[in-house]
Amino acid sequence: MADDPENCCQTLAIDPAIRADALARLRSIRGHVDGVLRMLERDDVYCVDALKQIKAVQGALAKTSDVVLRGHLKHHVVTAHERGDDDAIVAELMDVLKYR
Amino acid sequence: MADDPENCCQTLAIDPAIRADALARLRSIRGHVDGVLRMLERDDVYCVDALKQIKAVQGALAKTSDVVLRGHLKHHVVTAHERGDDDAIVAELMDVLKYR
Amino acid sequence: MADDPENCCQTLAIDPAIRADALARLRSIRGHVDGVLRMLERDDVYCVDALKQIKAVQGALAKTSDVVLRGHLKHHVVTAHERGDDDAIVAELMDVLKYR
Amino acid sequence: MADDPENCCQTLAIDPAIRADALARLRSIRGHVDGVLRMLERDDVYCVDALKQIKAVQGALAKTSDVVLRGHLKHHVVTAHERGDDDAIVAELMDVLKYR
Repeated sequence: MADDPENCCQTLAIDPAIRADALARLRSIRGHVDGVLRMLERDDVYCVDALKQIKAVQGALAKTSDVVLRGHLKHHVVTAHERGDDDAIVAELMDVLKYR
Repeated sequence: MADDPENCCQTLAIDPAIRADALARLRSIRGHVDGVLRMLERDDVYCVDALKQIKAVQGALAKTSDVVLRGHLKHHVVTAHERGDDDAIVAELMDVLKYR
Repeated sequence: MADDPENCCQTLAIDPAIRADALARLRSIRGHVDGVLRMLERDDVYCVDALKQIKAVQGALAKTSDVVLRGHLKHHVVTAHERGDDDAIVAELMDVLKYR
Repeated sequence: MADDPENCCQTLAIDPAIRADALARLRSIRGHVDGVLRMLERDDVYCVDALKQIKAVQGALAKTSDVVLRGHLKHHVVTAHERGDDDAIVAELMDVLKYR
């Protein structure tokens, strides 16, 4: 069971400080997406201005992902061998990381 | 003026069909971000589940960006030499595309 | 024929200065790849050192790609409407740019 | 010392099978780079053909990086807490992974 990459580790919860940080970032990202929506509701919006805003949102999402990833490595991955779920935790992590 | 990459082309508006497509995609992305927020409001959320959702939002944003980019190329970039703002349009496009 | 994205524009040759720049960058990249190969021939190489070198090569390739892309936009894409191959040039460019 | 992200873990050598796999991939990549160089030595090369080849090399490098990363996670990261170098190993890994 521990080696099933589909649900090895669902009982490992995110660290509270990491969760609070990720929540704050995602709330800001939601506001940013709202801003891009308002921009695109104007029929005279310029393509490159929309592309710049989308790129900024992607950057903010990448930082949020980095925060969660760092917490996962620190709180769950480095202890996986002790728990015995190392094969599963590596498989599911590679699924998320590859070509990102 | 036409060669100022900061605001060469603000009078070129996005194509209406492209704008409608991008709006629909961004509304769906806002819903997806709301879903990730609700997920992160639970204190037992698992890091990798959050990472997967963030990655899915990033993929949806990349597709939205591709839609807007294709429209920009088709409606504005291929005609830039005729308008005479080609240097500016290339400079601002490379700013958005590089290392994306 | 001009609208066949598979080979619309093979008669458009790369700009000589762009080609020289790209060649110099790729020769440096080949040297860098050789360096990573020598590093990996040592059996005590550390994974993260290899990852850092691969990332540096990827950055150098991305810059080379940006150089060629900028030249393509400037010399071929902005004039596509005048030549009449705009649909094909946009289609083949999006194939290369999407999700890069 | 173990917490110095600059050189925490240099004594951890890459797994031999991973190293052999990465070497074979990089030798193929070197051949591919040579092919792109020969392509760019022709003065009638078309920009988009060069961009496609560079993108293919980038994809091959990304797969090589994934191979090394998977080996690092499996052989070094999941055991970091037992060794006591977990802070350092997470810090150096995040340096390589962020925004890649």
